[in-house]
Amino acid sequence: MSHDDVRAGRIRRAPENFLTEAQIAEVGKGRREFLRKAFLTASAAVAAPAVAHAARGESAILELPPWSTSLGKPVAANPYGMPSKYESNLVRRESPGLTRVGGSSVAFAPLQGLFGIITPSGLHFERHHQGWQDVDPGKHRLMINGLVKKNMVFTMDDIMRLPSVSRIHFIECGANTGMEWGNVAVPTVQYSHGMLSCSEFTGVPLRELLEYCGADFKKGRYILAEGADGSSMTRTIPMELVESGEVLVAYGQNGEMLRPENGYPLRLVVPGVQGVSWVKWLRRIEVGDMPWATKDEAVHYIDLMPDGQHRQYTSTQEAKSVITSPSGGQVLLDKGFYNITGLAWSGRGKIKRVDVSTDGGINWRTARLETPVLSKALTRFNIDWNWDGKPCILQSRAMDETGYVQPGYGQLRAVRGKKSIYHNNAIQSWKVVENGEVSNVQVL
Amino acid sequence: MSHDDVRAGRIRRAPENFLTEAQIAEVGKGRREFLRKAFLTASAAVAAPAVAHAARGESAILELPPWSTSLGKPVAANPYGMPSKYESNLVRRESPGLTRVGGSSVAFAPLQGLFGIITPSGLHFERHHQGWQDVDPGKHRLMINGLVKKNMVFTMDDIMRLPSVSRIHFIECGANTGMEWGNVAVPTVQYSHGMLSCSEFTGVPLRELLEYCGADFKKGRYILAEGADGSSMTRTIPMELVESGEVLVAYGQNGEMLRPENGYPLRLVVPGVQGVSWVKWLRRIEVGDMPWATKDEAVHYIDLMPDGQHRQYTSTQEAKSVITSPSGGQVLLDKGFYNITGLAWSGRGKIKRVDVSTDGGINWRTARLETPVLSKALTRFNIDWNWDGKPCILQSRAMDETGYVQPGYGQLRAVRGKKSIYHNNAIQSWKVVENGEVSNVQVL
Repeated sequence: MSHDDVRAGRIRRAPENFLTEAQIAEVGKGRREFLRKAFLTASAAVAAPAVAHAARGESAILELPPWSTSLGKPVAANPYGMPSKYESNLVRRESPGLTRVGGSSVAFAPLQGLFGIITPSGLHFERHHQGWQDVDPGKHRLMINGLVKKNMVFTMDDIMRLPSVSRIHFIECGANTGMEWGNVAVPTVQYSHGMLSCSEFTGVPLRELLEYCGADFKKGRYILAEGADGSSMTRTIPMELVESGEVLVAYGQNGEMLRPENGYPLRLVVPGVQGVSWVKWLRRIEVGDMPWATKDEAVHYIDLMPDGQHRQYTSTQEAKSVITSPSGGQVLLDKGFYNITGLAWSGRGKIKRVDVSTDGGINWRTARLETPVLSKALTRFNIDWNWDGKPCILQSRAMDETGYVQPGYGQLRAVRGKKSIYHNNAIQSWKVVENGEVSNVQVL
Repeated sequence: MSHDDVRAGRIRRAPENFLTEAQIAEVGKGRREFLRKAFLTASAAVAAPAVAHAARGESAILELPPWSTSLGKPVAANPYGMPSKYESNLVRRESPGLTRVGGSSVAFAPLQGLFGIITPSGLHFERHHQGWQDVDPGKHRLMINGLVKKNMVFTMDDIMRLPSVSRIHFIECGANTGMEWGNVAVPTVQYSHGMLSCSEFTGVPLRELLEYCGADFKKGRYILAEGADGSSMTRTIPMELVESGEVLVAYGQNGEMLRPENGYPLRLVVPGVQGVSWVKWLRRIEVGDMPWATKDEAVHYIDLMPDGQHRQYTSTQEAKSVITSPSGGQVLLDKGFYNITGLAWSGRGKIKRVDVSTDGGINWRTARLETPVLSKALTRFNIDWNWDGKPCILQSRAMDETGYVQPGYGQLRAVRGKKSIYHNNAIQSWKVVENGEVSNVQVL
């Protein structure tokens, strides 16, 4: 298996990801017959268990495998467990050359191989502005200042003894799917949509901390969140989001403390809003009466509109969805049944419906949504599909509880033009050709 | 810090888990004044940011810490991420000497340090009967036989191309809290209740696989599930559970493939039922017309009743709850505010209510339940508490949607006697004494 195969995610195809290298080589040569036979054999009625194995021509399986005849490893052999060695290709990956140094780059989550809605913390996407650090929680402090009666400094111990809440939310970088604006079709869903993850976060509502400090909620209509990393990431956040109680000063993620790459020991959680506002290694909150226009919001994460104006402070991530399998770089090894699966999300609330087209948007069928369907969280959808072996285009279209429908590229470009980098929530199209290869195409 | 301190989880106390070793030593000597002062200082109003730091007497913080003045590590420095080095004490732990070899032992999940309801897969409890193996998914097979029209053998690829569902469920070993029957109060919640975890599972409903094989649902009222490990774990499961659609042949856990210790690449998920029935490394399902009375159900996981009879096939885990913090082995370093937090669950459906007592069961207050509250999943509860510094006993009591209320030890022993090992769902009591130490006690 070549390095390129691995990087493109081809070995993690939907139903065939456990083929041997020899079998993958066979497929590469266009000899898909073996697979069809294998499935027919697997589905064949056989008379008795032993015969079942024999019927597959798999004499090796007639003997019990070593894991059935030996004492395995003891408990806590890994006090902190890791994935199987057979899963070593399912990792987050950087797109080389995207930025000058890896400390200001992106590592994308491998959406093509994920299930359900929870992103394992080890595969959560990364986006840093000056690299990540393993901050000492004993030395970390959160200061609250500005339009408050008392400036205050909190230790981690102070924060963790306060009343906490736990909530499942998605986080998406505002630049996710950014390359697609310019019609640059990156090859896989890992690279096109992988700045997206979803976790259960635990922390203290920022509103309660501000009330404790005597914040002036009348004059103080904005907060500034500042990170302790080298980039001193700073973002303005409207106070109404804080007042809703949704904004959290979070220390927990998926049951344990935040990971260093995700802001350990403290980050802001701003549900529905682009990831850059979820300031990591959070060290300061300032209450103010107008936006700060910091470097990270005045010239970055802004939208260049068709009239040449820059739109600043775009923040809510609009409804969006993507089919994660089959997806670009995967190969359908045979016609027949497939489970089309994907993710939908909206920064405005719950996903209400996801429709799927297998003919490039002419006909749509409504997919099944897996529970739980939560506000501002990823929602997993599934739908049955029988591939007839002919070329086709797969698409998904999300609708959220406000009635907003995910736009096509034509609709989105009519409003936003073609020069943007950020906030692309257009319908994603995956093209399947006769040899089963799936690739990224744009459909207006 | 001594090894014993670490093992008992004392360093992972609720709000003070980031104290330095010197500070912990201070507390150990009964000099809690420093902590009170520290909190007062943290809460004090200060004039300006720089002064805020100075007021704490922390001159080091006046200088920016190294993580604020340097370029951090690049993205994908860990393609599969890991917890912070400061979290290295939060691991699953074996209770030494519990069994002769670690391959038939238990590693307990560190509930005292977990948040929300999702258990990180690296901290999921372990219970094996002959150790764990990293099974090759390319060689793994699932056979279905017995009262079916067609015996069938499935590869992982076959299973993963079928329609899948994703659902969040708890898993609890039937022996969880087993030591407490005999009034052996194990020191920490990790050892008393740590055979408990909760994950989002993805897989195929077993009902669909059985329908595909033409199972005889009229005569075939039971299934046998068999594992591929050396112990050939086998358990009988009533067909009505399968018919409900809840029983899954699962390959996904918390977004990625199952971990080897949790049955990679395939395990049975039997929501609400004790963990032993969730057969790992699942290799065979047989449909039959009566229970099999295998070794793992005829002599293990049975209940010795007061009349000397053994009750077999106890399977549903009744409603239960536990306060995870403050909990045994932790130390309250000062009087004042604490967030009491814990977990509740029921094998019969959703948790409806959790009541908390801080006076040994005389008065009860209803706790806040964090969303989502899901059927047969862990539910996180939180409640405010002001400790007045006097001795007290903390308890939680769960009620599920059927109206069932978690019993006290007196109620439970009246029905079940004192000789059981399994299926203890009694109310847990944590005693707090004046010096703040929390320990495990039994209250009838």
